[in-house]
Amino acid sequence: MVSPSLEARRFFLDNVELVVLMDYETVVRRRRMVRNFQTEEMPEGDLRKILDLAQHYPSAGFSQGVAFVAVRDAATRRKLSRDRDMFPRGWPNYVIRAPILIIVCVSEAIYHRRYREPDKLRPDGTEIEWPTPYWFFDAGAASMILLHSAVSLGYAAVFFGFPKSEIEGVKKTLGIPDEFHPVGAVSMGKPAPDKKSPSLKRGRRPYAEVVHFERW
Amino acid sequence: MVSPSLEARRFFLDNVELVVLMDYETVVRRRRMVRNFQTEEMPEGDLRKILDLAQHYPSAGFSQGVAFVAVRDAATRRKLSRDRDMFPRGWPNYVIRAPILIIVCVSEAIYHRRYREPDKLRPDGTEIEWPTPYWFFDAGAASMILLHSAVSLGYAAVFFGFPKSEIEGVKKTLGIPDEFHPVGAVSMGKPAPDKKSPSLKRGRRPYAEVVHFERW
Repeated sequence: MVSPSLEARRFFLDNVELVVLMDYETVVRRRRMVRNFQTEEMPEGDLRKILDLAQHYPSAGFSQGVAFVAVRDAATRRKLSRDRDMFPRGWPNYVIRAPILIIVCVSEAIYHRRYREPDKLRPDGTEIEWPTPYWFFDAGAASMILLHSAVSLGYAAVFFGFPKSEIEGVKKTLGIPDEFHPVGAVSMGKPAPDKKSPSLKRGRRPYAEVVHFERW
Repeated sequence: MVSPSLEARRFFLDNVELVVLMDYETVVRRRRMVRNFQTEEMPEGDLRKILDLAQHYPSAGFSQGVAFVAVRDAATRRKLSRDRDMFPRGWPNYVIRAPILIIVCVSEAIYHRRYREPDKLRPDGTEIEWPTPYWFFDAGAASMILLHSAVSLGYAAVFFGFPKSEIEGVKKTLGIPDEFHPVGAVSMGKPAPDKKSPSLKRGRRPYAEVVHFERW
């Protein structure tokens, strides 16, 4: 079994040059919410690759309603974490320690505009009814890529949502336009030792309860 | 450049046995909504691996509110596609051609029950207010894994949502419990030549419109 470090992605085996990349299954199984980080900066190229890949989420009508605010600036991360007027609860320390904070936003309005275009209207000329708010679904898909991309490049990440009381403060601090809703944020960087979430003690739901074959 | 077929995942290079797995970036960049399939069945092991990986989505409070109904049975897929009473619009032909149809469901109630447990209640003993319906977000993350897992194993897949008028028919046909909402379905199988979605002609939103650094 060959186990090169992630940093050494190119190596030689019997004079054959090999490039080591993490396979999909390993990325999925290795990912977990990590809540402590080294403060070491992330190279620009890695951050750009993560943000580039995150744009490859699927979206209803190719509406692409998700947007990202990537915050490297430590002062901004500190303001978000420590402004007790806007964020009385305080944000977790990892927002300050991790070099990268990415706010995931989505605009419901983009989807409505898209589904009022001629190719998406119903025969009677009206917009479809939305039984599912696919804008939040799409934001989840994009966030999944953010988290997985970080792992695939040797980083760790954590997603956290915003309580209702913080939405306006986040928008104001980062200049997020009215029509975009910040659904949550991802902190990422090199992992440091952390405690696993107590929620994990609940255990994974049994396969038989979650996966049904042919019918429920 | 070594390009083994996906089927031949183990091969020898200068007497060194190598196992070929698709790397994360390739999975993300290769995935697109494919709308035509070969009818060839999917081996049980691949289907189980895809469903197993799809359970590794993150969820608020580790609620794990997403469930899957995997339909291989051709008669059920035909019923879903062709029952004009329940589904007047008719479902796409690929639901019949692709050997696997996975319905993605989510229960909002599971999240409320989780956030009424002691460790999640607010200091005043009430459940949090939800500014974002994270159950749909989580369903999007799980669906992203379904689609990527299929690609990583050499399959293609398509996600499609349900219009409001079909939700009850889907629930009835598959015996989905009241508290679960079917958000959409994934057809998957070996790809066949297809036409790309006309929506793609809209093009990807420019990076500068979607990614903002430090602030919007």
